[in-house]
Amino acid sequence: MIEQLTILAPGLLGGSVAKAAYATKAAKRIVIWSRRPETRRALRKQKFVTEVADTPEAAVLGASLVVIASPVTKIVPLIAQINAHLAKGCIVTDVGSVKESIVKKGSKLLKDAHFVGSHPMAGSEKTGWENGSSDLFKNRTCFITPIKSTNKEATKSVALFWKKLGANVVVCDPKKHDNTVAQISHLPQVIASTLCSALLRKDPKVLAYAGNGLKDTTRIAGSDSDLWREIIDLNQKEILKALHNYQKELAQFEKALKEKNFSQVTRILARGKFCRERFILR
Amino acid sequence: MIEQLTILAPGLLGGSVAKAAYATKAAKRIVIWSRRPETRRALRKQKFVTEVADTPEAAVLGASLVVIASPVTKIVPLIAQINAHLAKGCIVTDVGSVKESIVKKGSKLLKDAHFVGSHPMAGSEKTGWENGSSDLFKNRTCFITPIKSTNKEATKSVALFWKKLGANVVVCDPKKHDNTVAQISHLPQVIASTLCSALLRKDPKVLAYAGNGLKDTTRIAGSDSDLWREIIDLNQKEILKALHNYQKELAQFEKALKEKNFSQVTRILARGKFCRERFILR
Repeated sequence: MIEQLTILAPGLLGGSVAKAAYATKAAKRIVIWSRRPETRRALRKQKFVTEVADTPEAAVLGASLVVIASPVTKIVPLIAQINAHLAKGCIVTDVGSVKESIVKKGSKLLKDAHFVGSHPMAGSEKTGWENGSSDLFKNRTCFITPIKSTNKEATKSVALFWKKLGANVVVCDPKKHDNTVAQISHLPQVIASTLCSALLRKDPKVLAYAGNGLKDTTRIAGSDSDLWREIIDLNQKEILKALHNYQKELAQFEKALKEKNFSQVTRILARGKFCRERFILR
Repeated sequence: MIEQLTILAPGLLGGSVAKAAYATKAAKRIVIWSRRPETRRALRKQKFVTEVADTPEAAVLGASLVVIASPVTKIVPLIAQINAHLAKGCIVTDVGSVKESIVKKGSKLLKDAHFVGSHPMAGSEKTGWENGSSDLFKNRTCFITPIKSTNKEATKSVALFWKKLGANVVVCDPKKHDNTVAQISHLPQVIASTLCSALLRKDPKVLAYAGNGLKDTTRIAGSDSDLWREIIDLNQKEILKALHNYQKELAQFEKALKEKNFSQVTRILARGKFCRERFILR
């Protein structure tokens, strides 16, 4: 059991980490810092919180594990801010959707503590710690992305922590991680958002008749634009590659449709169905 | 109450029409014809079926309302086949996702009976009458697409029928219908299928880590490829237009991302979120 778990800047994911750690008795003490005073006030009333600190520096005092749950561009600045206040051997991890730049910078910054990048593939179009849930990570993939310089024991501890919270841990090189999530998470986000955006620009009236197909296809377009802007910024190169690959497929479909090459149209539809059935059966 | 409702070639939609008509007591008698002998045998055991006929011609004898639930390319041939066997004043409708060509040809073909095109915006990636449900149409949009020559009373009767089954009826010109569904239904299908297809071609291994975002975005890619091939064939022109509009949006996003114009990236994401929230709140 972890003596003290500190969670910095909890949103949906950080709130879920706190609730899940409390529910699974993963930590003796759960200390939280949040930027907004009103959030701190609300958190003080929650049974899953042992203590709410007024600064990140105060929150990490005595922590064995620190989980940084802020938007991705704030992770490295927070590591720099807490660095001098971490106990020797303390482990710091995060929940960011992009890993390479964060892991490189985070690992370099820390002196006596160890950084191990994490990315639990869980979430919702909803935001805020209030919407977090203790079973958000259950049976979800959680990437852990050590690099050569990463402390082996720290990697193991972080893996154990996510397993305790119910996640399926996948250890993965940060660059490979960024390439993977660009395809399976960031590209679908771009597609859902641009589909909604295109429909709105073309003829908003048609949206009144949207069925369940369109609703599901675009659910994630309801996600927070600013959080996604940051993720897209940090993973720009890999997303461009994934987008280019997708545009090629779409162009191939368009060509087949223009030429009334319906056997090719069917091939693409059937390949899509095969793929969809493959990953849904896991 | 309808004296005799005949349903031809029930799949998921036709099965749901039968179950819903039975549950809401919309018809005194429900007669069904299905092409496959084994389906006819199975249907004979269902309580929602009054009679199962061995041919379409036999099934429509004495019918006041005929619902053709076959794949879209079989609708007009079935109308031609049953034409001589319909009672005077009988109403024929369908559930096809494309309307202009079907309504034109169907209306011309019928002599003593009236054709009124329908398209209930309900469905599932599942197929087959067994998966149909009596509440599939509840609170769903159902388009009814009369043309100038369509009998006014027949249009009213078909609207009443779908309302009885729980649908929100929208009367719409068939051309406008095809343009609308190309955007809100056929384009999302193409996008979900091509996304799956692109991911599979690029690197199938990444699919092992798919989260709920990708799962929802691609749910409809699991739909029947052959049914969709037919729909895409019949609505080729409108789908090409919708696809072109979408590709323009995607190219605009790509350009912004390449140029690191993140305020433009955010604008597109925010417009998508605005749109998504708008149609989800209806």
